[in-house]
Amino acid sequence: MFEQLGLIGCGLMGGSFALALKRAGLVKRIVGYSKSPSTTEMARQMGVIDIAAPSALLAVSGADIVLLAVPVSATEATLKAIRHMITPSTLIMDVGSTKGDVVEAAQRSLRDHVGCFVPAHPIAGKEVSGIEHADVNLYFGKQLILTPTELTYTAQLAQATELWTALGCKVTQMSPQAHDAAYAAVSHLPHLIAYALMNSIAAQPEGNAYLSLAGSGFRDFSRIAASDPQMWCDILLANHSELLAQSKLFRQTLLAMEKLIAAGDSEQLQADINQASTARINWQISTK
Amino acid sequence: MFEQLGLIGCGLMGGSFALALKRAGLVKRIVGYSKSPSTTEMARQMGVIDIAAPSALLAVSGADIVLLAVPVSATEATLKAIRHMITPSTLIMDVGSTKGDVVEAAQRSLRDHVGCFVPAHPIAGKEVSGIEHADVNLYFGKQLILTPTELTYTAQLAQATELWTALGCKVTQMSPQAHDAAYAAVSHLPHLIAYALMNSIAAQPEGNAYLSLAGSGFRDFSRIAASDPQMWCDILLANHSELLAQSKLFRQTLLAMEKLIAAGDSEQLQADINQASTARINWQISTK
Repeated sequence: MFEQLGLIGCGLMGGSFALALKRAGLVKRIVGYSKSPSTTEMARQMGVIDIAAPSALLAVSGADIVLLAVPVSATEATLKAIRHMITPSTLIMDVGSTKGDVVEAAQRSLRDHVGCFVPAHPIAGKEVSGIEHADVNLYFGKQLILTPTELTYTAQLAQATELWTALGCKVTQMSPQAHDAAYAAVSHLPHLIAYALMNSIAAQPEGNAYLSLAGSGFRDFSRIAASDPQMWCDILLANHSELLAQSKLFRQTLLAMEKLIAAGDSEQLQADINQASTARINWQISTK
Repeated sequence: MFEQLGLIGCGLMGGSFALALKRAGLVKRIVGYSKSPSTTEMARQMGVIDIAAPSALLAVSGADIVLLAVPVSATEATLKAIRHMITPSTLIMDVGSTKGDVVEAAQRSLRDHVGCFVPAHPIAGKEVSGIEHADVNLYFGKQLILTPTELTYTAQLAQATELWTALGCKVTQMSPQAHDAAYAAVSHLPHLIAYALMNSIAAQPEGNAYLSLAGSGFRDFSRIAASDPQMWCDILLANHSELLAQSKLFRQTLLAMEKLIAAGDSEQLQADINQASTARINWQISTK
């Protein structure tokens, strides 16, 4: 049981964490801060936080657990702003979708307190953002990746593992580098592709007419293109080297399939499609 | 009210049409045929069809309405096989995802009866196939595109429009060429991309480990990669020229975004992502 959660960033991710922590009876008091005062106030009125703080530093004052739920590019400035309130027993976590840059930002800004910081990435989200979409069940049943370094304190790492497990997550540990390589492939690249496809279609003279004819396949495929633009711009830039490597591999695979289509090589095209279809069906089965 | 539906192809699309036509009270008797006798028999046992025919020709014998629900590459051979049972008042339709090749196949195979053929494409489907997934509501509330030519009889075109409207579809007419250009962009390319992404990831040494970490964004994005491989191989080849043009445009857009990421141009990247996100959100609103 924690005394006080200092929540920095009262959006979808932060708000959902606050709601889940409260329901689990794991925290007595939640003090929240968001860049926009009206957001912080809305979080208070909704009962997601108990007290609205006028600054990140004041949200952290007296907190034994701190959650950063801000765009990954704001990690360093936020940690610098709260560093003076951190004690060796504070547990600090983030929920960012990239981990290499976040770990580096934590090392630069927290210095001798960096051991308090347990980098976390819940594999959960929605294509809508904002406190009004906060959902007590957002994290339940989802994967949660922790990417500790050799500087991370074992006490905080154990606390973080226990906490997310109590919220119903399947907790996994890996290195920040392994995390960023994997999510470049299965998350960041799909987002980039979805953005590129929307823009490629919309830029054509007939683009809007084409879009008006799209069905449910397109709906699901492009859903992630509606995700929070600022957050995703940050993520794509933060993980640029892994993402660009994945995107290049993907373009090569796509081009190879285009060549089969141009050559009318139905046998090899069928084999490629079978392989992709089998991989997707096996993935679906393995995640059940 | 039709006397007899001759259903050729008792799969997801054909079976769902039969169920919907029956529920709407628009047909007295359904005679079905599938390439695999066990499928035809299962359709009969499920009550999707009333009589199992041993050949396409016998399914069409006595039918005043015929539905072809076979892979688009099988259109020509199927129409040739049934052509001797067609009378000037028969309504023949297909449900294929490409229209240019289907219209040409109909002209070659039906010759002086080609006016009976009304090319149709219901914008409905599932990532699963087969009669066991037939769904009486599959077409309800969906778009239905008719692509008549100057040879199509007005009587059959009116019948087709009335029939799909009665099944709850929003019926639109366009040329086969306009249809294929639009669906290359909003359906065939997304499928090709989904296949290429699955194969690009799975081909990496860590590919399966990466996939095991994927979340709900990946799930929805890649759902269409599980679609019927043979059907989709056919579609991609049938609409190759429009598809390859769309894929090239898409690769150029993707490459341009990669360059922004490599250059760290957050301003222009953010603008591109905003544009894509807005286009996706507007699309969602317009389809409600």
